[in-house]
Amino acid sequence: MADQKQKTLQPWTSLGRKTVFAVPGRREIFADHVQLPDGREVVDFLQFESPPFVVIVAETGDGQIVCERQYKHGPGRVILTLPAGAIDAGETPLQAAQRELLEETGYAGESWQALGVVHMHANAGGWKSHAFLARGCRMVAEAGSGDLEEIQVELMTKQELLVLSIGDTMPMAADFAALLPAFLAMGTLRVA
Amino acid sequence: MADQKQKTLQPWTSLGRKTVFAVPGRREIFADHVQLPDGREVVDFLQFESPPFVVIVAETGDGQIVCERQYKHGPGRVILTLPAGAIDAGETPLQAAQRELLEETGYAGESWQALGVVHMHANAGGWKSHAFLARGCRMVAEAGSGDLEEIQVELMTKQELLVLSIGDTMPMAADFAALLPAFLAMGTLRVA
Repeated sequence: MADQKQKTLQPWTSLGRKTVFAVPGRREIFADHVQLPDGREVVDFLQFESPPFVVIVAETGDGQIVCERQYKHGPGRVILTLPAGAIDAGETPLQAAQRELLEETGYAGESWQALGVVHMHANAGGWKSHAFLARGCRMVAEAGSGDLEEIQVELMTKQELLVLSIGDTMPMAADFAALLPAFLAMGTLRVA
Repeated sequence: MADQKQKTLQPWTSLGRKTVFAVPGRREIFADHVQLPDGREVVDFLQFESPPFVVIVAETGDGQIVCERQYKHGPGRVILTLPAGAIDAGETPLQAAQRELLEETGYAGESWQALGVVHMHANAGGWKSHAFLARGCRMVAEAGSGDLEEIQVELMTKQELLVLSIGDTMPMAADFAALLPAFLAMGTLRVA
């Protein structure tokens, strides 16, 4: 069986990096010169680094989740997602999560818990996504993210979310789907 | 409350697109000229389109999940992920899922079910990820993906996976985390 042929996976060796595209402060693309464990070299392994960001599962006192609908230019339509955003310079992931939730939705949480980190788009550079669970959330301000995308805040029950996560009628941002297991595992999502 | 101020979210209008970076057949970046619903125009909204891909939850007859460990150059370390890959020209998503599972792991499934579609990295173009559940999987061939990354196939119980999904000691590809809820919801993942 495959799991019997265990061996140690070796990292690649970085031999150099050059910038092939840059919009200062917004986006940079590198061509990495790498050597594989078997000795082969690749001179232009493209990497698209992006700043780490946060995504928040914000639960109200009565167990609903604070969601957002936004037009997203990638798919070219309105999709459902969770509050999320990049970590600013000097911020901890938790500080960024608290700021993004407040800016995007006007909600604040009573207690916060880190759910873990996933790496998105890991082949091509990608970025780390830090997930948080905020409990006891309530609206304390007007939302106003300053993002280009207009945000419509929507409270959804966990049952509604779980149904969406296995359908394809409503495109979801992957961040969104990625977090359901975490709060399922933590016992905060109980489906009838 | 936020969910009382419902209004119709409007899409953006595309006024033009120009290519700002291209590696033929591999990667292309566009600067889109868009108009927001409030009339504002943005002339260089960057979009990184990538081909759609598939990700597979492959369950063996005894309920284990076919996982992979691979060095991924983005995080620069070995991470855990699910079988996944781009949909080739002319393939349906299902065909791509069956091919990728076989190539990367040597496993084939008895029955296949579509779990839905999520859109990754939706702000910046991104790509669609089609998720499939394959049941009754067994090894029928030697693995041999042809990918640059060496793949170590590893069968894991669902309990092991769920513990990983809320820890941050083992970075996971987001694809991986994104699929747990689907098979949880479908009753294929039962945790003690």
